[in-house]
Amino acid sequence: MIKVGIVGGTGYTGVELLRFLIQHPKVKIKTITSRSEAGMPVADLFTSLRGHIDLKFSDPSESKLEKCDLVFFATPNGIAMQQARELIKAGVKIIDLAADFRIKDVNVWEKWYGMKHACPELVKEAVYGLPEINRDHVKKARLVANPGCYPTAVQLGFLPLIEAGLINTNQLIADVKSGVSGAGRKAEVHTLLAEASDNFKAYGVPGHRHHPEIAQGLSNIAGKPVSLTFVPHLVPMIRGIHATLYAKLTKKKNVDLQTLYETRYANEQFVDVLPSGKHPETRSVRGSNICRIAIHRPQGGDMVVILSVTDNLVKGAAGQAVQNMNIMFDFPETQGINPIPLLP
Amino acid sequence: MIKVGIVGGTGYTGVELLRFLIQHPKVKIKTITSRSEAGMPVADLFTSLRGHIDLKFSDPSESKLEKCDLVFFATPNGIAMQQARELIKAGVKIIDLAADFRIKDVNVWEKWYGMKHACPELVKEAVYGLPEINRDHVKKARLVANPGCYPTAVQLGFLPLIEAGLINTNQLIADVKSGVSGAGRKAEVHTLLAEASDNFKAYGVPGHRHHPEIAQGLSNIAGKPVSLTFVPHLVPMIRGIHATLYAKLTKKKNVDLQTLYETRYANEQFVDVLPSGKHPETRSVRGSNICRIAIHRPQGGDMVVILSVTDNLVKGAAGQAVQNMNIMFDFPETQGINPIPLLP
Amino acid sequence: MIKVGIVGGTGYTGVELLRFLIQHPKVKIKTITSRSEAGMPVADLFTSLRGHIDLKFSDPSESKLEKCDLVFFATPNGIAMQQARELIKAGVKIIDLAADFRIKDVNVWEKWYGMKHACPELVKEAVYGLPEINRDHVKKARLVANPGCYPTAVQLGFLPLIEAGLINTNQLIADVKSGVSGAGRKAEVHTLLAEASDNFKAYGVPGHRHHPEIAQGLSNIAGKPVSLTFVPHLVPMIRGIHATLYAKLTKKKNVDLQTLYETRYANEQFVDVLPSGKHPETRSVRGSNICRIAIHRPQGGDMVVILSVTDNLVKGAAGQAVQNMNIMFDFPETQGINPIPLLP
Amino acid sequence: MIKVGIVGGTGYTGVELLRFLIQHPKVKIKTITSRSEAGMPVADLFTSLRGHIDLKFSDPSESKLEKCDLVFFATPNGIAMQQARELIKAGVKIIDLAADFRIKDVNVWEKWYGMKHACPELVKEAVYGLPEINRDHVKKARLVANPGCYPTAVQLGFLPLIEAGLINTNQLIADVKSGVSGAGRKAEVHTLLAEASDNFKAYGVPGHRHHPEIAQGLSNIAGKPVSLTFVPHLVPMIRGIHATLYAKLTKKKNVDLQTLYETRYANEQFVDVLPSGKHPETRSVRGSNICRIAIHRPQGGDMVVILSVTDNLVKGAAGQAVQNMNIMFDFPETQGINPIPLLP
Repeated sequence: MIKVGIVGGTGYTGVELLRFLIQHPKVKIKTITSRSEAGMPVADLFTSLRGHIDLKFSDPSESKLEKCDLVFFATPNGIAMQQARELIKAGVKIIDLAADFRIKDVNVWEKWYGMKHACPELVKEAVYGLPEINRDHVKKARLVANPGCYPTAVQLGFLPLIEAGLINTNQLIADVKSGVSGAGRKAEVHTLLAEASDNFKAYGVPGHRHHPEIAQGLSNIAGKPVSLTFVPHLVPMIRGIHATLYAKLTKKKNVDLQTLYETRYANEQFVDVLPSGKHPETRSVRGSNICRIAIHRPQGGDMVVILSVTDNLVKGAAGQAVQNMNIMFDFPETQGINPIPLLP
Repeated sequence: MIKVGIVGGTGYTGVELLRFLIQHPKVKIKTITSRSEAGMPVADLFTSLRGHIDLKFSDPSESKLEKCDLVFFATPNGIAMQQARELIKAGVKIIDLAADFRIKDVNVWEKWYGMKHACPELVKEAVYGLPEINRDHVKKARLVANPGCYPTAVQLGFLPLIEAGLINTNQLIADVKSGVSGAGRKAEVHTLLAEASDNFKAYGVPGHRHHPEIAQGLSNIAGKPVSLTFVPHLVPMIRGIHATLYAKLTKKKNVDLQTLYETRYANEQFVDVLPSGKHPETRSVRGSNICRIAIHRPQGGDMVVILSVTDNLVKGAAGQAVQNMNIMFDFPETQGINPIPLLP
Repeated sequence: MIKVGIVGGTGYTGVELLRFLIQHPKVKIKTITSRSEAGMPVADLFTSLRGHIDLKFSDPSESKLEKCDLVFFATPNGIAMQQARELIKAGVKIIDLAADFRIKDVNVWEKWYGMKHACPELVKEAVYGLPEINRDHVKKARLVANPGCYPTAVQLGFLPLIEAGLINTNQLIADVKSGVSGAGRKAEVHTLLAEASDNFKAYGVPGHRHHPEIAQGLSNIAGKPVSLTFVPHLVPMIRGIHATLYAKLTKKKNVDLQTLYETRYANEQFVDVLPSGKHPETRSVRGSNICRIAIHRPQGGDMVVILSVTDNLVKGAAGQAVQNMNIMFDFPETQGINPIPLLP
Repeated sequence: MIKVGIVGGTGYTGVELLRFLIQHPKVKIKTITSRSEAGMPVADLFTSLRGHIDLKFSDPSESKLEKCDLVFFATPNGIAMQQARELIKAGVKIIDLAADFRIKDVNVWEKWYGMKHACPELVKEAVYGLPEINRDHVKKARLVANPGCYPTAVQLGFLPLIEAGLINTNQLIADVKSGVSGAGRKAEVHTLLAEASDNFKAYGVPGHRHHPEIAQGLSNIAGKPVSLTFVPHLVPMIRGIHATLYAKLTKKKNVDLQTLYETRYANEQFVDVLPSGKHPETRSVRGSNICRIAIHRPQGGDMVVILSVTDNLVKGAAGQAVQNMNIMFDFPETQGINPIPLLP
């Protein structure tokens, strides 16, 4: 039984963390902070939790996070880096669901996130929490940078192809679509139902913060810099990410891609490779920690098309964070995060 | 550990039953039948179940239902009544999620459902499976008629007021709204996304099959015939029922309705009475077996307005069926059906 | 050709007014103001208008509204009343799409809208712009209070029954459902797609600003105070209002309600009475100025159920405003507001 | 004033054709056929048309199409080719909204559409009705093959780049997303709201009928065969197509793509090139015949990303058909198809 704290529990990743942690047999939630809602019972804000949790939001200043074994930051970017040094010093482990520790090049980070980094030395130490790549490092980590939602779906989709050295990494394309919960629980005009419903658009084509994160991850896999075109789109749905990935085969063109993927992910409990010829739907992973993948090679040509779907709030955020927690504390990796997807 | 069979597993109540039963610690699913999909792995039809179930759909003729302890009928109306007599004789308990055994007056049933009833004698024996009213009878039942989705939300909403004899039961109004999954997984034009999305309509105002079921239930509570106007509507959403109920207070107008409801449901784990002044949202019960209720008396007048929400596929169907199973087999009533609602 | 100004053109009623006025053969739009967006081309904010309008938003202080023949206020409540006196004095006619002049009892208005009224004397003069009731007054009006969206659908639904004196006006019920565009183009959490989609809820049951407006209108029709229970709901769709109205017949119970409605609305070009037994869908009026109505008497009982649908942004706002303009300036009443609804 | 017939008027392209043709000043609709609904008033099926049309669906055998100046086929594939020869002989012009005459290579057509072509000789004569490419041929055509929805958005997106010879046409990628109305008004499970809502998926990756049509069109523009990867996706919305197109610049890398597109489309009234840096939304063209395009070159690299949106039922079907009609009969090209998009 570990003691866990959550900083910033009023957003969608917060309520999703609670959904998993409340019913996790090895976890006791000690505190959940919110500057704006301090004093309010959590179940008053999230009616879905009535009967499941008695905690109130506490003011960050009184939250005694240093008494926790683990603290999740479900905060906007730039918060975790303010508190990480002190917590680490106090022996508390950290999983940051925001972007503070995801990018190793601090200059790149500062350019994209528009602020000075508060503890660059911890950036170096932080482990990028994509278990399918970094499980061994996560196991020993004090500080885990939980991957972004787009980067998770894209990296898991490209991983086997790049590892196997089969594709031209100079012209990777990731055409990715996300439900609007990816924008968070923030009052903004463009994600109103009256704006985003019955509508579809790309955004951030000139540049998006997840681009450097994905490029870094793919380059690490490739062992050399890759070149990636990344186009995110907004889908009129609540949850779900669908990555459509394009890559050109360079050699070994007779390789059996289906087997390649099935073999690579044979021991991964949260990656499901569909049988040949199928197309994954985002709703088939709704509410679950699964990344579901299909591999296509249209008309038997050189262009490989990978379809990779996740629930952006689960495998793309809170679920993966709990998966990392399970690894860090040597709990069974699927514990508490194995619900059956909600369909329809 | 009981052996369970499911007849007709290719619809929404089927997949929802599976979601609960697969992870239920006291249940072993022995067979799941489908005439049309016999031989197909269940997880091929419902990708969400991949990795969670190995069964294939079996042909009804080879399903050996008589070896089960319990059989769920998740079939269209008119199927369960064909097989009930034989199964009961073989010592198998039955929970019918369709309407075959819901209405005591066989003539009324035959009029609304447009067919001859195949075993009227079992109609008499069948227990109407609304645990909040009939728990003791369900406990001993061999045959449970699982309530309809609208009837569950409406009856639980009116129940305390009628039991307390506070309202005029000659002019009850139930204005009820349902997500489209209530229409089932059937290819029909009017429930296409292109028809039902960005749209709202009432239907069945001249008459709807759930009217006699609700009227029977409310009359039983009242101990005399009630008069009900029931107007169902189709909401452009997948899951959820929202009943807006209107009743006129006749006496004891100083009664504290909030306390009345809280007291009546104090020991009911699947009915949640919201604090005074609140409005329940359907998404606050999405995927869960909760019925969430609020009581209003606008401007302190004589008209009481009850708001009652459920997930039509859970408390309105599969969840309530498993709740009835738990009661029939003396399992803890919430076992296997206590997930936290999926929000957002 | 009249010169028209629009105050507050950045909301949904603003862009909808533009949709109609741009293509209206008798109208020249002289100015459209916005404090926040002054200087921005209108078509930059509303891409749908590219190629259809060259105007920029102008600062209210420089808008020369007094040179217009007519000014529409598509502003929040409390703005029109600040400018009305002066404009009227300058000979400019006004149609206020907000609530400033809708309620005759200034005390009631001030209670519900939480502010002091700036020109009570004009409240008296203002004509409530529901043409089906007030056409002759609108014709001569200098100042028209354009009705609210809920009030339009509810009043047109009850009108023939109340005029004919057939129902008990002491227990009217209006259970009304609205798309989220009714909440306006405002950044708010509860109308985000991630909050309002796949969800349904009632709101404002203890009290809603449209209650006194509707009650006033129905009382005027009845010639005596009526008692109304009004429950609004939020539907996960963009446009549309669906009013489900309940009233008890008091006498003349053999009256042919279908004929009553068809006769009452025979000459109304924007009210369409459906044939007996039908249910109107909101999408059947999407983008149009039609109010479509069906009349039911379930099981031939005393309870009448009226179904009344409109597009909340058209007949419930901008379309009706242009209809009033047409009447005020003696243009053909349907001119410029007769598009065929967009279906699907 | 021309006399027009519509064959197969009960689908979405049928009702959309009616929306435009009913209010077209030069058109008289003589007949609209439907085998299944013969005798039913059109406005009974499409309530949105009440008050706008008096016609009944007529049986094809009694429809006297040969007396029309022009016949639209809004039918499933394989119908127009059965009747075209005879109508052409009778001097009737034809616009086929289905695929019968789109593909010049009859073998390819027969392979993809799974039937024997009934009049190959007319395939040769048929003009592919994309006015931005083929206006002069459309003008003189007796038989127009109206382009598919995906092909319209994709071809208009790639057109200027390919004409200018700037890109590598051996690795074109079209990642395209469509609202569900593209699947037509057919009762199918996968397009039910309960299946397609809150969901996103690719489909047809191994092969889709629009692939050969697009490839043929792009090859014609290029003057040589192109190689295209085409991945269609289903978006949980009613209307709209969003094509995200990827192409690699081969030379003249300093070319100003923005100017290239603006110049190419300067005289096209239905193609709108957005200012640099913008992203078109599908709702900005909802209900309109506009194709709205933006050009991006992320990070100034060699990969060009084109965003192209249309309303699949308008520029992707009925609107373009009326545009072709206007051209064939020398009416102003925008006549009757210039409504302002419905937003929100």
